[in-house]
Amino acid sequence: MPRINFHQQLAALKDKLLAMAALSQQALEFSVEAYLARDMALCNHVLEIEEAINAAETTVDEMAYELLAKEQPMAIDLRFILSVIKINGDLERIGDQAANIAERAQLLKNAPELSLPVDIQTMGEKAGVMIRTAIQGLLEANPKMAESVLSMDDEVDDMNRVVQSELVDTMQQHPQFSVQALSAILISRNLERAADHATNIAEDVVFWLRGSDVRHKMSLAEAD
Amino acid sequence: MPRINFHQQLAALKDKLLAMAALSQQALEFSVEAYLARDMALCNHVLEIEEAINAAETTVDEMAYELLAKEQPMAIDLRFILSVIKINGDLERIGDQAANIAERAQLLKNAPELSLPVDIQTMGEKAGVMIRTAIQGLLEANPKMAESVLSMDDEVDDMNRVVQSELVDTMQQHPQFSVQALSAILISRNLERAADHATNIAEDVVFWLRGSDVRHKMSLAEAD
Repeated sequence: MPRINFHQQLAALKDKLLAMAALSQQALEFSVEAYLARDMALCNHVLEIEEAINAAETTVDEMAYELLAKEQPMAIDLRFILSVIKINGDLERIGDQAANIAERAQLLKNAPELSLPVDIQTMGEKAGVMIRTAIQGLLEANPKMAESVLSMDDEVDDMNRVVQSELVDTMQQHPQFSVQALSAILISRNLERAADHATNIAEDVVFWLRGSDVRHKMSLAEAD
Repeated sequence: MPRINFHQQLAALKDKLLAMAALSQQALEFSVEAYLARDMALCNHVLEIEEAINAAETTVDEMAYELLAKEQPMAIDLRFILSVIKINGDLERIGDQAANIAERAQLLKNAPELSLPVDIQTMGEKAGVMIRTAIQGLLEANPKMAESVLSMDDEVDDMNRVVQSELVDTMQQHPQFSVQALSAILISRNLERAADHATNIAEDVVFWLRGSDVRHKMSLAEAD
């Protein structure tokens, strides 16, 4: 009987984490939309979601702690709980990135819109696909799916690098647009970092299912 | 007898984490020095230290996992191990910030030096004090010392905000210095983020010793 209860609690922990993941995905997606459309109401909504994510983080940590304290989980169950604790931290940081993007968009409220040499929409979509795929790997307990995320990270890193150099040129040629160009550079970095967190989540899913630590093997010095 | 062994293993885990913390502090300090002095050899050294930090992260995680798997730690010991796992992640991310600063300094190798309206040295020192204080709180098992870190974070956040707005003015007035100004903005953010990680570490020390979760109570939407 206690073991049945234990597995129910593990399932509840997974459900709570998946619900939080949905919030983090949504926050990031909305933040890009809010920035692109200069939608101040949507900015506020992102900041509300971020508070909900922070609350969920505390709950997930407490559930994981209770399970470790009251049961003696072994092997795959222990790895699952440890992975949940780490994924929890990464989801919360994706929420932070989304909040940063929303706050940046708020600062641009009155700045004229420009066509800049940067495709924030595509970067946002790629980061979103990475998060969704990593979480799908968690949901389906599918390590191959999680591993597929690891190779996607380079694309977003490369896009971020190109953005930085092109927007510096923009700043030099059109100093009156420095605020907009800088905002785009910083948002590009926020998205690149959100993609890094998706990579971390994928690595934790692989650790849970395979028991091997894949960190720092794919990419030795990934940016944070 | 097994309990004595268990406490020796906990002590070994703490030692390994403290050694890693020393590397992270050193990497951050050297990265600021390398940037300020345009010291390319020191940049390379920071990148070497970052690889050592990444290796240490994997070792600490494995030690923590072994302890959870083989023993049934309760209460304060369990909280200690969970805190170690989180602090480990934050120390690794401080290493990432240092590597980012060193890589940015490498890009500036041939850029003329300028006097910019930003005090990276002081920001670096403040972030360093926060990391050292949080780690000292861990070493001495002193929650009050760890709590003192939480109030320091606002100073670095404020400095970062001022830097951003002043350097945007620099870019607008002197577009030929955009590269240097942007680098200073990004390094200021790296230091602000390193300070956030120090805050996270301090919160984990408090959680270990007091058993209460202080996150999201001091600052609801801290930047990542």
